[in-house]
Amino acid sequence: MSSQLETIAPGGVHRTDVCIIGAGPVGLFAIFECGMLKLDCHVVDALDMVGGQCTALYPEKPIYDIPGYPQVEAATLIDRLAEQAAPFKPNYHLGQQVTTLTPGQDGRWLVGTDKGTTIDCRAVLVAAGCGAFGPNKPPLDGLGEYEGKSVHYLVRRRQDFAGKRVVIAGGGDSAVDWAISLSEVAGRVMVVHRRAKFRAAPESAARLDQLAKDGVIDMVVPYQLAGLEGENGRLSGVKVATLEGEEKTLPADALLAFFGLAMDLGPIASWGLNVEHHHVAVNPATMATNVPGVYAIGDIATYPGKVKLILCGFAEAAMAVHAIHPLVHPGEALHFEYSTSRGVPGS
Amino acid sequence: MSSQLETIAPGGVHRTDVCIIGAGPVGLFAIFECGMLKLDCHVVDALDMVGGQCTALYPEKPIYDIPGYPQVEAATLIDRLAEQAAPFKPNYHLGQQVTTLTPGQDGRWLVGTDKGTTIDCRAVLVAAGCGAFGPNKPPLDGLGEYEGKSVHYLVRRRQDFAGKRVVIAGGGDSAVDWAISLSEVAGRVMVVHRRAKFRAAPESAARLDQLAKDGVIDMVVPYQLAGLEGENGRLSGVKVATLEGEEKTLPADALLAFFGLAMDLGPIASWGLNVEHHHVAVNPATMATNVPGVYAIGDIATYPGKVKLILCGFAEAAMAVHAIHPLVHPGEALHFEYSTSRGVPGS
Repeated sequence: MSSQLETIAPGGVHRTDVCIIGAGPVGLFAIFECGMLKLDCHVVDALDMVGGQCTALYPEKPIYDIPGYPQVEAATLIDRLAEQAAPFKPNYHLGQQVTTLTPGQDGRWLVGTDKGTTIDCRAVLVAAGCGAFGPNKPPLDGLGEYEGKSVHYLVRRRQDFAGKRVVIAGGGDSAVDWAISLSEVAGRVMVVHRRAKFRAAPESAARLDQLAKDGVIDMVVPYQLAGLEGENGRLSGVKVATLEGEEKTLPADALLAFFGLAMDLGPIASWGLNVEHHHVAVNPATMATNVPGVYAIGDIATYPGKVKLILCGFAEAAMAVHAIHPLVHPGEALHFEYSTSRGVPGS
Repeated sequence: MSSQLETIAPGGVHRTDVCIIGAGPVGLFAIFECGMLKLDCHVVDALDMVGGQCTALYPEKPIYDIPGYPQVEAATLIDRLAEQAAPFKPNYHLGQQVTTLTPGQDGRWLVGTDKGTTIDCRAVLVAAGCGAFGPNKPPLDGLGEYEGKSVHYLVRRRQDFAGKRVVIAGGGDSAVDWAISLSEVAGRVMVVHRRAKFRAAPESAARLDQLAKDGVIDMVVPYQLAGLEGENGRLSGVKVATLEGEEKTLPADALLAFFGLAMDLGPIASWGLNVEHHHVAVNPATMATNVPGVYAIGDIATYPGKVKLILCGFAEAAMAVHAIHPLVHPGEALHFEYSTSRGVPGS
């Protein structure tokens, strides 16, 4: 699906009604909502694909709480949302991080990216999830030298680890699920966790136990990461230690560290938005921030009673786009109809 | 799907955490949300099936704005929502209208139905859509005598009209879509509308025009309903008139009147809830009404910025259930996890 998305080359000034920041599930649904209300929009995302975390971090994970989907894989949900947005011919600017927000003319905004693109818009809709979501990193000397080469925080393709000796660090679902999955292709899988117990789905934890008993996976518990060995970004070993300071080195070609995500607003933090605990505060009736013309929805937005679920982000998208409509079409009554009576282009 | 639902026989007192009033799409999703938060619930609906309007009024209509569904038929959406709720073994009380709300012990509520059932619950979640949604009825003498026999406001089964002379009154999608559909099975279809123009999807209106040109459907415009002829509830003819008072009688076996739905809170109106323009006012952070322990979500609920879409009702269900949790489990921290990390029973 994502291969079918037309991405606009970096640079230039693009004039539109709404600039959506973030092409995760909520940003994608905001495109659809803009379309239904006949608002033109451009979408910017730092990743070079749509879907945000769903695509980048857990594409094959089943999700159970999308209304009407008893179960759906994250990547499938993203495909469907992109398909639902497609009739409105979205303008995607992928692989670009937004950096600047500067006032334009007549209450408009100019959103600038690190690749020199400018979006000239009437409203900005921030749907940036955890922001430039950084993985939590282990505090190891020389880590930067190995990152992206032999130290990773996500798995794009299982096959990249075929035949390799892989150390997986962490105690949650990602660590457990990838240990199980990579044990089928890797030369060796070693799981490092500071406790013997994992915070993972019971079925998965039981499966990991069995694989360990069968000698397929090495459980290195209770240990934590203590250092990296190797040169020029190529690991040869991962040093681990107990809380008591007992150390050993695991011969390894790759380290996968799954310590969760850190909220990181990135450049958005400097835009003068009211921020509460790394989240953008909004008016729950409109999703408007304190900066006129700038709205926030999804995981990045907070308000009293906020429940951080994708499905709530969908509703926030609908509310925000309805609130933005009069900015773009002042004085024009929104002739609001249910989708059943109007349909979408080409349907 | 709905045939698989276990319905509880009327009567008795049922003790539970949450009583959900209304088994439309939003009520069904509330069951799932209760389940995810380990709250027990019972569900009451006046209809003898789940799905509310989706099932009763437009089961075969495509809906375009359910997130992740580029297109879905209303009945299919309901099937999926019921399937999503099923692992939590919902307790359905169908074909019963709620009538009374009386205080129970320790802040609990007793919800009574017209069939003698009592639900003893800690919280009431009103997801009653348009309430006991009455169809708007034409002001015709003796109408009641014919209703349910030869005058109808919805089509349950097309086949009920096979070979019959059917007058369809109305100018919206329902009138147009059913005229087209029934023309395939009815003996004769006559469409009565006070204007020549229809408020329907352009494709459908064009198709109706063509069928009229081809002599398959009789267009009776600009006319409106003026009277019914027949006896013992069996129609023999429908009298119609122009605005100028010119009358004629259409020989007919059945009349289908599609004049939309009227909001009707029914008995809920007497429960002391703050009502604004036939809607229940709620706190948007919690969906709480002014009556402690009583919450409202979906089309029946209103708050600043409310957008009346099914998808917003889903989010309201999540917020309400999160707000109800501490009532049922006071002092217990809600260990809230994403569905991806916990899954649902049996998954």
